[in-house]
Amino acid sequence: MRDVQNEVDYRNLEIDKVGVKNLRYPIVLLDKYNDQQHTIATINMSVNLPHRFRGTHMSRFIEVLNRHRREIDIHRMGDIMKEMKKVLNAESAHLELEFPYFIEKQAPVSGAKSLMEYKVKIIGSLNDKITMTMGVSVPVITLCPCSKEISEYGAHNQRGEIYVLLRFKGFLWIEDVVAMVENCGSAKIYSLLKREDEKYITERSYENPNFVEDVVRNVADKFNKNENITWYQVDVVSFESIHNHDAYASIVKN
Amino acid sequence: MRDVQNEVDYRNLEIDKVGVKNLRYPIVLLDKYNDQQHTIATINMSVNLPHRFRGTHMSRFIEVLNRHRREIDIHRMGDIMKEMKKVLNAESAHLELEFPYFIEKQAPVSGAKSLMEYKVKIIGSLNDKITMTMGVSVPVITLCPCSKEISEYGAHNQRGEIYVLLRFKGFLWIEDVVAMVENCGSAKIYSLLKREDEKYITERSYENPNFVEDVVRNVADKFNKNENITWYQVDVVSFESIHNHDAYASIVKN
Amino acid sequence: MRDVQNEVDYRNLEIDKVGVKNLRYPIVLLDKYNDQQHTIATINMSVNLPHRFRGTHMSRFIEVLNRHRREIDIHRMGDIMKEMKKVLNAESAHLELEFPYFIEKQAPVSGAKSLMEYKVKIIGSLNDKITMTMGVSVPVITLCPCSKEISEYGAHNQRGEIYVLLRFKGFLWIEDVVAMVENCGSAKIYSLLKREDEKYITERSYENPNFVEDVVRNVADKFNKNENITWYQVDVVSFESIHNHDAYASIVKN
Amino acid sequence: MRDVQNEVDYRNLEIDKVGVKNLRYPIVLLDKYNDQQHTIATINMSVNLPHRFRGTHMSRFIEVLNRHRREIDIHRMGDIMKEMKKVLNAESAHLELEFPYFIEKQAPVSGAKSLMEYKVKIIGSLNDKITMTMGVSVPVITLCPCSKEISEYGAHNQRGEIYVLLRFKGFLWIEDVVAMVENCGSAKIYSLLKREDEKYITERSYENPNFVEDVVRNVADKFNKNENITWYQVDVVSFESIHNHDAYASIVKN
Repeated sequence: MRDVQNEVDYRNLEIDKVGVKNLRYPIVLLDKYNDQQHTIATINMSVNLPHRFRGTHMSRFIEVLNRHRREIDIHRMGDIMKEMKKVLNAESAHLELEFPYFIEKQAPVSGAKSLMEYKVKIIGSLNDKITMTMGVSVPVITLCPCSKEISEYGAHNQRGEIYVLLRFKGFLWIEDVVAMVENCGSAKIYSLLKREDEKYITERSYENPNFVEDVVRNVADKFNKNENITWYQVDVVSFESIHNHDAYASIVKN
Repeated sequence: MRDVQNEVDYRNLEIDKVGVKNLRYPIVLLDKYNDQQHTIATINMSVNLPHRFRGTHMSRFIEVLNRHRREIDIHRMGDIMKEMKKVLNAESAHLELEFPYFIEKQAPVSGAKSLMEYKVKIIGSLNDKITMTMGVSVPVITLCPCSKEISEYGAHNQRGEIYVLLRFKGFLWIEDVVAMVENCGSAKIYSLLKREDEKYITERSYENPNFVEDVVRNVADKFNKNENITWYQVDVVSFESIHNHDAYASIVKN
Repeated sequence: MRDVQNEVDYRNLEIDKVGVKNLRYPIVLLDKYNDQQHTIATINMSVNLPHRFRGTHMSRFIEVLNRHRREIDIHRMGDIMKEMKKVLNAESAHLELEFPYFIEKQAPVSGAKSLMEYKVKIIGSLNDKITMTMGVSVPVITLCPCSKEISEYGAHNQRGEIYVLLRFKGFLWIEDVVAMVENCGSAKIYSLLKREDEKYITERSYENPNFVEDVVRNVADKFNKNENITWYQVDVVSFESIHNHDAYASIVKN
Repeated sequence: MRDVQNEVDYRNLEIDKVGVKNLRYPIVLLDKYNDQQHTIATINMSVNLPHRFRGTHMSRFIEVLNRHRREIDIHRMGDIMKEMKKVLNAESAHLELEFPYFIEKQAPVSGAKSLMEYKVKIIGSLNDKITMTMGVSVPVITLCPCSKEISEYGAHNQRGEIYVLLRFKGFLWIEDVVAMVENCGSAKIYSLLKREDEKYITERSYENPNFVEDVVRNVADKFNKNENITWYQVDVVSFESIHNHDAYASIVKN
């Protein structure tokens, strides 16, 4: 029988990435406060394919994942990519995980506990060396400074989202990224708020108005002062309550 | 050659609906103020299939749609369904269209004009008689009465969505449904607002706080008083700015 | 301070459902083969609101969920709804959970093990009595009988999805629903397939062509013969490889 | 009254992009065969913001769009961006449009006509000079060469998507991009197919098996030979019928 994948392709075209996409798999992650956290990831795995080969071996990606899915953290992703390179005879390997991550939060006045979801993305690439990039999406409330200034009372506010993409030296917990970012809007938000907490957040956000322009600078300023962060992109989206479209601002570190 | 679709199925199971789904097609609709409006619909078309037939003829749905797509309004959908029944030898026919619809709005103070998008769904069924149901999704701003009451200043507010599903006697313009519904929140929203408009909406919504419970009742109350509306369902969702989940209320007319 | 939620609404309009929507929360479920399974649910919780009250107490929903999220199964959902009724002074309560659920499968020839994702929805309502409905989405391959018949060689096939919604007497495992449904298409599908498995599935689906009309009847026929299933709706969608739209069939048990 | 947007920000942080996002607006495009085409775009508009200004003027984006939305083509986008730069006193401007575009196709044997949807994205940037990038998503059928080789009969096939991102010299019609790309899979697909067309496509795809690796090279090879294309990225996704995840390949021109 012909081994179709190992046939030769004569067009001299190297493929940058070939692999599996949108695979959904349960994984277990390191958690800063609870040892480990179970979640569900959407996974892309790929390698390069030299110009002389026609195809890769898709089932091997799943086999590698099966061996490692119970103990994933950002630093062990390098081992997974090394194994991908090896079993697929490749020169580069790429692994992307996107998953919901939950952190227990305490309401600001009552102290009531609940879980907040943060969407996380981890993008790893292994060529000669490993590059890891972490993306974290943090929901906040934004209150418009212009609306506050021009109005007799009140100010429009809304749910917003700060999406950061980071490269860094050493270890970085998802929990620490959230802690750095979540107070860069007008106020933090929570799943469970008692009446006294709602009062606090309403007043706090009114005292602390922020354009998307302010929020993106608040985050960039913090990241600039953190010497472990070597590169970042910050995107802020505000789901404007007075419009049906969004306000947006972005800073990318050169 | 066997005609596979016309083979007999012996299991005595009538199929309620068989057809095409998620077909994307450009259509032209009647517009109350501009004669006609071009939009893009996501379309489901189906008929019943008596128990003695194995399959339907999927290509005929597309042929019927091709003949009618340039002149669609709610009242001509009956003709399309009659044609579907006929060419597919069926006893019932169903046609669902979902599309963005744009209405020109004037900002409340400056009068600046812009277009607002409303998501519309029209669901038609033809058995012995025709049933038409119209769904319209209207974005609004909601401002929380509790937050206003308990706070020294400010009140959390956010984008909300009022989704109505209606049956009615006679003709009903999408524009008229939007006009009935859009002032049932704390304020209307717009694509283009100058500074004086932003001030107006900020103050207007602060003066007019509404829970989702209030909004859903505001709409139901209006619909109850309109004798052409024979049935409705109203769903209100508020994308809470202090949470990352939504508040929700629903009333269905018995 | 005014208790705004407990104010009286004079319009005499009962609200059918009021509550929280699109709350994302990690939950732990009973698993037929592994004791328990961690997953992430999208949750809607609501109660009715009598006409005399202005608002409900949204934070209480989260508190109830917090108490129960670590041990959820279909039969304990009744207890959660009873608690919702009680703490919210309501006459009816509704709880909807939607989550990915993973089952280990063995490839048909090699026996290679991997995890397959099934999207599950559980909808509970408590009025005087409890109604539970389970929805399970099962991906399959469908191969077109007409294409096979008319072509010299080959037959178009594609990924399809069987979505079942069920009511039943006694206990029903998600695993058992999947087992009933997954062989109603042209072949079962898997996350990990070795070459011998791919050969098996290719040939198996070619030997077993099925229209969406056939698939929906295959499932309905099975459910009709299962005396524990008291009601069902079956929807089959085939993501046609020769079109950019889908074929669709549906049977609802009267 | 304070002009909050024009206040000074002292943190010395230039914002790369600030503007509006996810604005939905009806637009009119040049059409190669029918003069013009109405469609609905999702629009992002942004400019840079020098470090000394606190905020931009969001309403001006909508005003610029209002003036131009009825006559958009790739070459006039430069004028829109120039106007954005001017009215917002910026040094750079960015305009992204994403919209469905329909092209009439004739079935391969019967010649039956229908409309196919292609998702299009146009990304413009104006700094000192203008950069335009066009993205087009083309659905195709892919048939697996390995499955054909190892199986006694049949071969798994499925819907796939070729997504190209292009930069080019001179004028490039969307219609021409689709024509270049759509025959790089195992067969083209259509909205309306009669029985003789279905036979043709089934047999054609069986005679022309292609891995995602083959498809991505087919496209890259064509683009390399077209001297007007100065840069490209090609991504191919195949919605594998034997799996619930996708196969993927990508080539980026250096």
